[in-house]
Amino acid sequence: MPAKQVPDIVVGRLPQYLRSLQRMARENRQVTSSQELGERLGISAAQIRKDLSQFGGFGKQGTGYNIPYLIQQLQAILHVDHEWDLAVVGAGDVGSAVASYHGFANRGFNVKMIFDNDPQKIGAQIGEFTVQDYAKMIELIRAAGIQIAMIAVPSAAAQEVANQLVQAGVRAILCYAPINLNTPDGVYVQYIDPAIHLQRMTYYVGQ
Amino acid sequence: MPAKQVPDIVVGRLPQYLRSLQRMARENRQVTSSQELGERLGISAAQIRKDLSQFGGFGKQGTGYNIPYLIQQLQAILHVDHEWDLAVVGAGDVGSAVASYHGFANRGFNVKMIFDNDPQKIGAQIGEFTVQDYAKMIELIRAAGIQIAMIAVPSAAAQEVANQLVQAGVRAILCYAPINLNTPDGVYVQYIDPAIHLQRMTYYVGQ
Repeated sequence: MPAKQVPDIVVGRLPQYLRSLQRMARENRQVTSSQELGERLGISAAQIRKDLSQFGGFGKQGTGYNIPYLIQQLQAILHVDHEWDLAVVGAGDVGSAVASYHGFANRGFNVKMIFDNDPQKIGAQIGEFTVQDYAKMIELIRAAGIQIAMIAVPSAAAQEVANQLVQAGVRAILCYAPINLNTPDGVYVQYIDPAIHLQRMTYYVGQ
Repeated sequence: MPAKQVPDIVVGRLPQYLRSLQRMARENRQVTSSQELGERLGISAAQIRKDLSQFGGFGKQGTGYNIPYLIQQLQAILHVDHEWDLAVVGAGDVGSAVASYHGFANRGFNVKMIFDNDPQKIGAQIGEFTVQDYAKMIELIRAAGIQIAMIAVPSAAAQEVANQLVQAGVRAILCYAPINLNTPDGVYVQYIDPAIHLQRMTYYVGQ
């Protein structure tokens, strides 16, 4: 484990390395190189070697990386060598899609409950889940010891939901509302906003 | 407009600035500062001033930024001073949620069509859209002159869909499948993968 603090930008690349390696493992591959990983990800081989060396380095010069071993190490570093339960807040289109998402399997996450405050939605079935009453959210999240939540409510409601989640003991929030949340120190927030990604591309695509 | 090439990491922050400014405009605000923007976004005021100065600087020392003017300038820089039509490929949970997403309004994007290859889905109604046959995708995208698409199909199909989109003239792809796409130079790809964001937070949240 790292002796010094690792820059956040490096931390942000580790899940990408892990995802590529897991894909190689599904292709029954045993060994890869920083060159190959780099080509798959559009990141230079030197950058990948430098990033991994922050955690001790996991390959020998000339022999490459052992894929199952590097997966195991990255899972431990990212704390996804076990599964985290998730709560989803908001049972609209986005929340429903997230709750039904199959892409979390083998990546350390497991949706456990979904909440809404709309009487029309409470009690409804979304895949394997019954939509639960937002009024009981703090209680149920605390009881289940859930530490990670996804917010999929309208922007105007998102900050209040975040406040409640923090009260319930949540320490990491993935926010689908296009708004910046205020949270206390020690609570991490990431955002998913497709318009931000699209605008980053139209800059280059031009008129 | 910039005389020299602006680093991609700076480009990536511009949509965040624009989003915050548009929010301020909805609050009927006229003037802001790099300090205030920085607090809303968790980015240093110095960084924001430096980023904006790459495009000529839009404020005078001590008087702050005029919000409507800066919005207009950023929209022009990001080429979202007009609307782009979008195509969505994949009419599952994620594709349906994206096609129905209301968050694109005023941000430069407008979903125009959605495709699937599943006979059960072709012809079905998703909000205002009728799901169209994937077999006709190249033809329809070309005829409409659509340059931006979102891929919401299973990972195993995503690369083939991307190839078809490129053939159809698409130059920017937002990919919801957890896979890295290969595309020719001049075609931009961005990814939305919630597990990547979650793993970036579990690194910090710990066991």
